[in-house]
Amino acid sequence: MKPLKEDLVQLGKFGRKKPVRIARRDHLDPEHGLTRLPGTKANKKARDYIVKRMEAAGLDVKIDKVGNLFGRMGGADPKLKAVLSGSHLDTVPNGGMFDGALGVVSALEAVRRLKKRGFENDRPIEVVVFTGEEGSSFRVGLLGSSVLVEKLRVNQALCLQNEQGNTLEEVLERIGYKGSYERTVDDVEYFIEMHIEQGPILHNEHIPVGIVENITGITWLFATIQGIPNHAGTTPMKVRQDALVAASKIVRLVNKRAKEMTTTLNSSTVGTVGELEVHPNTPNIIPGKVHLGIDIRDVRRENMNTLVGEVIEALRTLEKKQGIQVRIDPPITHLPTSLSREMVTTIGQVADQLEIANKRMDSGAGHDAQNMAAKTKAGMIFVPSVDGISHAPMEWTNWRDIERGTRVLTETLKNLSQKNNKTMWKA
Amino acid sequence: MKPLKEDLVQLGKFGRKKPVRIARRDHLDPEHGLTRLPGTKANKKARDYIVKRMEAAGLDVKIDKVGNLFGRMGGADPKLKAVLSGSHLDTVPNGGMFDGALGVVSALEAVRRLKKRGFENDRPIEVVVFTGEEGSSFRVGLLGSSVLVEKLRVNQALCLQNEQGNTLEEVLERIGYKGSYERTVDDVEYFIEMHIEQGPILHNEHIPVGIVENITGITWLFATIQGIPNHAGTTPMKVRQDALVAASKIVRLVNKRAKEMTTTLNSSTVGTVGELEVHPNTPNIIPGKVHLGIDIRDVRRENMNTLVGEVIEALRTLEKKQGIQVRIDPPITHLPTSLSREMVTTIGQVADQLEIANKRMDSGAGHDAQNMAAKTKAGMIFVPSVDGISHAPMEWTNWRDIERGTRVLTETLKNLSQKNNKTMWKA
Repeated sequence: MKPLKEDLVQLGKFGRKKPVRIARRDHLDPEHGLTRLPGTKANKKARDYIVKRMEAAGLDVKIDKVGNLFGRMGGADPKLKAVLSGSHLDTVPNGGMFDGALGVVSALEAVRRLKKRGFENDRPIEVVVFTGEEGSSFRVGLLGSSVLVEKLRVNQALCLQNEQGNTLEEVLERIGYKGSYERTVDDVEYFIEMHIEQGPILHNEHIPVGIVENITGITWLFATIQGIPNHAGTTPMKVRQDALVAASKIVRLVNKRAKEMTTTLNSSTVGTVGELEVHPNTPNIIPGKVHLGIDIRDVRRENMNTLVGEVIEALRTLEKKQGIQVRIDPPITHLPTSLSREMVTTIGQVADQLEIANKRMDSGAGHDAQNMAAKTKAGMIFVPSVDGISHAPMEWTNWRDIERGTRVLTETLKNLSQKNNKTMWKA
Repeated sequence: MKPLKEDLVQLGKFGRKKPVRIARRDHLDPEHGLTRLPGTKANKKARDYIVKRMEAAGLDVKIDKVGNLFGRMGGADPKLKAVLSGSHLDTVPNGGMFDGALGVVSALEAVRRLKKRGFENDRPIEVVVFTGEEGSSFRVGLLGSSVLVEKLRVNQALCLQNEQGNTLEEVLERIGYKGSYERTVDDVEYFIEMHIEQGPILHNEHIPVGIVENITGITWLFATIQGIPNHAGTTPMKVRQDALVAASKIVRLVNKRAKEMTTTLNSSTVGTVGELEVHPNTPNIIPGKVHLGIDIRDVRRENMNTLVGEVIEALRTLEKKQGIQVRIDPPITHLPTSLSREMVTTIGQVADQLEIANKRMDSGAGHDAQNMAAKTKAGMIFVPSVDGISHAPMEWTNWRDIERGTRVLTETLKNLSQKNNKTMWKA
């Protein structure tokens, strides 16, 4: 097995109930995916594997205070700023083996290929692993990159708690990845991240490479609807304050309005109630409390805000019924982000030179690249997701598409790390 | 504190996060109730307390194979069948301190009062504690009484599993309440259970005693809706198979149709989705699977079956959408039950003689008495629930109403345990 595929197959073992090697799509089990939340044993195994592989490739590995990993290959010109490339190794619960891992492994593979060819980079190149890109565990997504670009302070990040009430600091210490390296992006010129598309566009159009122009805006709303828990048999229908009946109105509103907006505004709007917890959650008690986690996205900020506003209004309206109270946490928002035009052009030229079909597109998922875009020139390469499936056990990308993407990434990194790379790009 | 109140206050300590004595309604904490699932440490403490109190009252205590407790006072006439009275000590999660416990404690108090008076009973009297009346833990409600009346075989009951995957046998052994006593109801003539109403009728009408004529029928439906889990940001609205959006249709249908039926049929119909679990349950993944627990009740069998049929039909209709699959477990049904007319008349006469206001009514909750009614003459005494609240931390019954109910219970037990009690009742 070639090194790139081998790395993905090996990483794909960590975080399964029973470690299995998965090298073909028909090996996948639709019920049992990968769970590798930040700071867990499975997360440690994936980190250990990558650190070993980075060191084998001759990279100098450092760990910062929130567990971000940097594997550095020095450059010939000490005055030039670095090129960073990478992604993350954490997954959502019961997710897939390409989301995040591919961006780390392909960056490492690109470095190996450049070294093998004897290419001499002017700029330093660093392979990056960000901590906690998925917000599944610590509620705040893009955690590691937020700290790197100083959107979030180190101590704020370390004090975040997961569902078990453990802080990020505790879980990082437990797995040995609470480092001391202090890195900023002051000496970073470029960031490039390869990632699976996670949507159906490239797959449906049979195009192996997407070049991301914009990353969607995301708002997370967490709300608690408090009704009155009571006996399901003895409480007449007309005197109930059923928190789940109230919550189901919100579930349907979010779905209906997002659908309508995509039609009336021809927008990229999506709205999802992905999280819903009922208390006390037993058939014979009227639900007294429901906790909701709502995800709303659009590449256009105004569309996102419209839907967020409507949902908050609907939640407030529930309170007009006597006995229902609603608490809404402050919304967590990532604004829509435009990636570097220089990067888009460079990646496009490289793909064209390699005669690999490509298209410019937007990302409906959030990525660490959107944080990096605030302080560096950031770009992204997408490869197709079979049937558009991701964040699920059936997530898959064909090996030949991974190879094509990796070739584009390698040549782009080569180009960006040369002193005179800018000649390719015309503003 | 008088013995009856003392017993309830003491029992009310077991199953709270922090044991507290609650003797007044304004001591209650609306957030923190009582959790005493069968076979837990809290359940053991409550059992230990009652066994000690039974023994202190001179009763001979026996434990059967499913943990039902019987505290027996022998009768003067060895040929006469026994009178049983009692209820249960398990609670729903985060429930109240009167549901179940009151029926056990009041029966014990009645026996203590009869003994103190020097009353000589012809029939044996037994105070009963049934195992697992609430179905919260082992899914099957009225567990202990179902075994006693041979509706459920001992081995079937012992093999039932709770949410942690432990069998009833395991949890009973763990707390030392897996007995060997083999009791049938062949030698039982009467069963009488005092219980809180759990609804608002007696409270609203200021009547201290209800005499139950019929117990509602209950159907529990458990269903799993399987959609397609996928990324909440990259999956366009129109191609989603969101299991929670589908489930929310069922939540609203159950509520809407039950409400309509109470109006159009003037029925006692109630319908509740009390249990709903989302998988994987994180904001940025479209729900792939939702598990539902639905409770449907009516005193009239045909109404209950109508609503159950409509809900099953609606669940089946969800499958017409491509990508949605629904699994419906076999419904669990307790048919509506009429209690003994002899018992209704006797309790009414006793209450009238004591000049305690009373009314005949139906029960919207299921009770062990409905199982006992299949093989013995069974009756029930209700006392008011303040504001109709139960299965919740704010469950409360005023001490003076408990005293009135206990007086009716004591005199009824006295009457039933006499050889010539039937003279009071005219068919």
